[in-house]
Amino acid sequence: MLDIGVVGAGIRGRMFTRALGQLQDVRVVGVVDPTPAGAALAAEFGAAAYEGHEDLLSEHDLTGVVVATPDFAHRDAAVAVARAGIGLLVEKPLATDVGQAREIEAAVDAGGGPAMVAFENRWNPRFVAVRQQISEGAVGDVLFQCAHLNDTRFVPERMLSWAARTTPAWFLMPHTVDLALWLSGRTPRSVFATGLRRELARDGIDTYDGVHALVTFDDGTTLALQSHWVLPESYPSVFDFRYELVGSRAAVRVDGSDEGVHFAGPSLQWLHHTTVERDGRLVGVAAEIARDFACLLRGEPVSVPTVAEGVAVTAVVAAVHESVTSGRVVSL
Amino acid sequence: MLDIGVVGAGIRGRMFTRALGQLQDVRVVGVVDPTPAGAALAAEFGAAAYEGHEDLLSEHDLTGVVVATPDFAHRDAAVAVARAGIGLLVEKPLATDVGQAREIEAAVDAGGGPAMVAFENRWNPRFVAVRQQISEGAVGDVLFQCAHLNDTRFVPERMLSWAARTTPAWFLMPHTVDLALWLSGRTPRSVFATGLRRELARDGIDTYDGVHALVTFDDGTTLALQSHWVLPESYPSVFDFRYELVGSRAAVRVDGSDEGVHFAGPSLQWLHHTTVERDGRLVGVAAEIARDFACLLRGEPVSVPTVAEGVAVTAVVAAVHESVTSGRVVSL
Amino acid sequence: MLDIGVVGAGIRGRMFTRALGQLQDVRVVGVVDPTPAGAALAAEFGAAAYEGHEDLLSEHDLTGVVVATPDFAHRDAAVAVARAGIGLLVEKPLATDVGQAREIEAAVDAGGGPAMVAFENRWNPRFVAVRQQISEGAVGDVLFQCAHLNDTRFVPERMLSWAARTTPAWFLMPHTVDLALWLSGRTPRSVFATGLRRELARDGIDTYDGVHALVTFDDGTTLALQSHWVLPESYPSVFDFRYELVGSRAAVRVDGSDEGVHFAGPSLQWLHHTTVERDGRLVGVAAEIARDFACLLRGEPVSVPTVAEGVAVTAVVAAVHESVTSGRVVSL
Amino acid sequence: MLDIGVVGAGIRGRMFTRALGQLQDVRVVGVVDPTPAGAALAAEFGAAAYEGHEDLLSEHDLTGVVVATPDFAHRDAAVAVARAGIGLLVEKPLATDVGQAREIEAAVDAGGGPAMVAFENRWNPRFVAVRQQISEGAVGDVLFQCAHLNDTRFVPERMLSWAARTTPAWFLMPHTVDLALWLSGRTPRSVFATGLRRELARDGIDTYDGVHALVTFDDGTTLALQSHWVLPESYPSVFDFRYELVGSRAAVRVDGSDEGVHFAGPSLQWLHHTTVERDGRLVGVAAEIARDFACLLRGEPVSVPTVAEGVAVTAVVAAVHESVTSGRVVSL
Repeated sequence: MLDIGVVGAGIRGRMFTRALGQLQDVRVVGVVDPTPAGAALAAEFGAAAYEGHEDLLSEHDLTGVVVATPDFAHRDAAVAVARAGIGLLVEKPLATDVGQAREIEAAVDAGGGPAMVAFENRWNPRFVAVRQQISEGAVGDVLFQCAHLNDTRFVPERMLSWAARTTPAWFLMPHTVDLALWLSGRTPRSVFATGLRRELARDGIDTYDGVHALVTFDDGTTLALQSHWVLPESYPSVFDFRYELVGSRAAVRVDGSDEGVHFAGPSLQWLHHTTVERDGRLVGVAAEIARDFACLLRGEPVSVPTVAEGVAVTAVVAAVHESVTSGRVVSL
Repeated sequence: MLDIGVVGAGIRGRMFTRALGQLQDVRVVGVVDPTPAGAALAAEFGAAAYEGHEDLLSEHDLTGVVVATPDFAHRDAAVAVARAGIGLLVEKPLATDVGQAREIEAAVDAGGGPAMVAFENRWNPRFVAVRQQISEGAVGDVLFQCAHLNDTRFVPERMLSWAARTTPAWFLMPHTVDLALWLSGRTPRSVFATGLRRELARDGIDTYDGVHALVTFDDGTTLALQSHWVLPESYPSVFDFRYELVGSRAAVRVDGSDEGVHFAGPSLQWLHHTTVERDGRLVGVAAEIARDFACLLRGEPVSVPTVAEGVAVTAVVAAVHESVTSGRVVSL
Repeated sequence: MLDIGVVGAGIRGRMFTRALGQLQDVRVVGVVDPTPAGAALAAEFGAAAYEGHEDLLSEHDLTGVVVATPDFAHRDAAVAVARAGIGLLVEKPLATDVGQAREIEAAVDAGGGPAMVAFENRWNPRFVAVRQQISEGAVGDVLFQCAHLNDTRFVPERMLSWAARTTPAWFLMPHTVDLALWLSGRTPRSVFATGLRRELARDGIDTYDGVHALVTFDDGTTLALQSHWVLPESYPSVFDFRYELVGSRAAVRVDGSDEGVHFAGPSLQWLHHTTVERDGRLVGVAAEIARDFACLLRGEPVSVPTVAEGVAVTAVVAAVHESVTSGRVVSL
Repeated sequence: MLDIGVVGAGIRGRMFTRALGQLQDVRVVGVVDPTPAGAALAAEFGAAAYEGHEDLLSEHDLTGVVVATPDFAHRDAAVAVARAGIGLLVEKPLATDVGQAREIEAAVDAGGGPAMVAFENRWNPRFVAVRQQISEGAVGDVLFQCAHLNDTRFVPERMLSWAARTTPAWFLMPHTVDLALWLSGRTPRSVFATGLRRELARDGIDTYDGVHALVTFDDGTTLALQSHWVLPESYPSVFDFRYELVGSRAAVRVDGSDEGVHFAGPSLQWLHHTTVERDGRLVGVAAEIARDFACLLRGEPVSVPTVAEGVAVTAVVAAVHESVTSGRVVSL
């Protein structure tokens, strides 16, 4: 039996708990979250509730821990878990600071346990299908990439209590940067970016409205990024996610937000089905991540995003912020 | 351990074999198919190869059998399996003749084993998402339905060796009719349909080019169906699948063929990812059907399309053909 | 100078008046409409206002008259205008009764003046482009057609004061039937249709919610039609218009409602630009219809929808209603 | 009567000639082009053919001249026409060099005649519709813009004989830069851009494959641009044109390449209908540009892109190239 702890009982922590809980050899034994959501989640799964990760680690002999705290608050729990040699699943981004990301990486190296970062697009079947084409050579050399991932104002204004403590770039670009690095296999060399700080700040959320960035790779190709938080709430999806790649043999365009189910009810919505509930059970991406984390904990061979990849993504997004602030091209 | 036999080693038989084979407590022990594909599939999974289902059944103590022969050739194997009380998974349509469908149903009732029909849209996450909205009352009463499922000429001309022995309506409408019955929960009362027999017949494949049909339900609402086999091969998907529903509270539109991944290589293709291979393993609809068949065989509670539903679908599609031939409205 | 009268000062009458008024050799001299909208429109264009078309005809020496009264009220004015040999532009449908349509046709023949029906899709550039492909043989023989034209509830509930005096089929199908006849060049032979009368009637508007129909042509090919008035108002366009054609050499799909400009403001809207205002002037379909009516009045060669075509369309839509009522296939 | 000369008998010169020729008070009297296309176009319109613009100007008393030579070759003819006080229509870009653009501007100022640049999106009804929303305040402040305009390899490899003498940025970005400046009304302040020179150069066309750029405006907002020439020819349109704008009150997305008519013939094509031929006559954008040029020549009030705007666009695109070469942010 794999005994699992969960740190962070927000949307993502809850989703991982549920997906792990439906595996036959997994038992969620403890949940860490000082808010009432923590106790509720623990109760739902018959697990113990804790206010800090230290108690979780001291009271259980855990096989793995999920760290799904706010973006900027992964380090302490992740380092403690990793150093103890316990299996680690960290929600993306690994950290919002390159130093902290490296601390986690060092702890994983020191502890020797397995670890992965939940860059969920690696399991998203549309990108799995694209990756297969790339692997088979059907795309040729990657020449241009473009990735937009934006949210409606709902996310900074009502979904996240901690929006002002992060930025749309930290919240969203880890997804797109990881995706671009994974699909193209290239190494980023420099970043130029611009940011606008106006609308959300005016509404009392002191962060960027959004960021535009250009990442240049070692082979001279470029990735254009856009992430903002000011999409109107009438947009039919809470997120707007598009990825494009032009290769020497093929061009690929992926829509990750319009999943082909258009629902015109009180408002128009594009229903999502990348993860769905069928017969009371989660099916899709969340279930696959949980399955692979369990495989990792059991020592079975499985392909997952590594902590080193998490460090690389954090480095790019940190450079984006540095470029916005300095107005200059930042080398990596 | 669940010992499974597979009858029919075509595209679908192979897919089910693969998906079942990756489950931990399942063993595919025998494959029936008189063509070389049968021996090849058996060899790949370390199973025995047979020319007829009788040998498969006599040589193994099977828990379940998959019947994935051509559309019109399900009856013999399905009846034998069901009568023996062995678990049955029949590829859709249950049969292309109402009498044969009822024979299978009677055998299942007599044998007492579990049985299901592989109407795969029941597992398709986009329709699972729609069904959930309907269950929650968000759609209100279903007023109008429309379902188009067409194939490019590749299917009758090069994919199916037995195209002239069936029709696009028998090949395609079981999908859409089952979907409409399942989503709306209504009972069909009458059918009017028209068919065109020109292009394929001219090319030596003596069947309809396609069929248009109107199905009227017990509550006076209507379903419009279209299925043809004459889409040009430049169409970016081998199938064209669209479902629409207008309800008293919401309207829903689903595209099942444009899955949001557009690939412009030598030609434009819409890549499919409803079932994908990830890390050497099938993920998605095929895996979920296999999982649920295994649950069914183990006696676990699971929601699957029943043989009675398969009979109902066959009755509607048979009425479509009768109306095309007679030019009259056919009552059910 | 071409002196023009306009009968009916609703949305369409106003649009034609405006489009005609911007032509250099056209003068709108009189507007007939007993409501305040009539006086307002007349004042805007410096024209005289009348309560009945008789006064308009007796007080002016007109070159042409636009008849844009409600669908069912074209006959009296159209017959009077046509019999007087004055040029006639009738809004579609020509009439909602085959007898009345034939009366108008007879009056045009008797009067000898030019006449046209404003089936606006004939000027819609997307269908002009499709027609050109058909003319060049790129589509081959037309095998299957499908045309959906639906409105949101806004149309019967708030836009039309006379919704209960017509049906969605009379309001919408003239567009799609004319389009299908024009593009395919086939002659309709029989019609089967179903109608639902539930939601709007429940809300006090005693008409069909919508109608499904199958029209069979002289060559055995079929056209599937759908027109309803119960699309939710969250739909991003007040109308939903899709036309599809499968030919022996090509398949064509046209979206006439999603014109490619998506506007997420207070709600999501698909902005229309088939007719736009640029620099204070109408540009697009409305301007082109007005231009061609002026050409027709001047005796210049121009290709416009004829009154005979208007009669044919009315005959098909009348058969749709007859089939809905009788439940039988209606021959034409 | 307006006597018009045309310099350049390529695709665009021919289109303008045809559109001007169908106006009642316009006469195309001379065509300048040293290739056989020049003589052919002249013959078709009963005009004289010339090898150089000097002869055209000396032999006719012209009201206006269209300059539609290759991108980099506008200056000489444009300056001569403008200096003579003759009305000028210059194809975009005004010039591919800021100095030359300013020479043309100075000549227009000196000559005193009317002049316009054919930035055709100003007449494109989809952008006219967007502009109207912006004018009415429905979009609020423009926060982010993104404009992609790419071509398939057909353009550099087979359509343009002079591809190696320009770049995809000079060929395409004038369209998108003008659009963004016109819609947002902002002044560009700095540019950062990256370019890739690999595939086309390898195939013997020594220019960039494509360019990514970020333009920052005076109010801190940003425009992301992409223009490349390496889209596979299986793309259903020879160009890929998308414009997006996020404002404080609304977000707008425009597709200028997928015009809603999908034609699956020998390959999949998106038919264009922004300019169509109806009844032997050009209708749409080309006709509107010609009409407005005639209005300009007649001295009627009309809103057209000015030469000053042409200079501004050239300055931005020149800065894009400078940034690609220097790797630095370029101030304007």
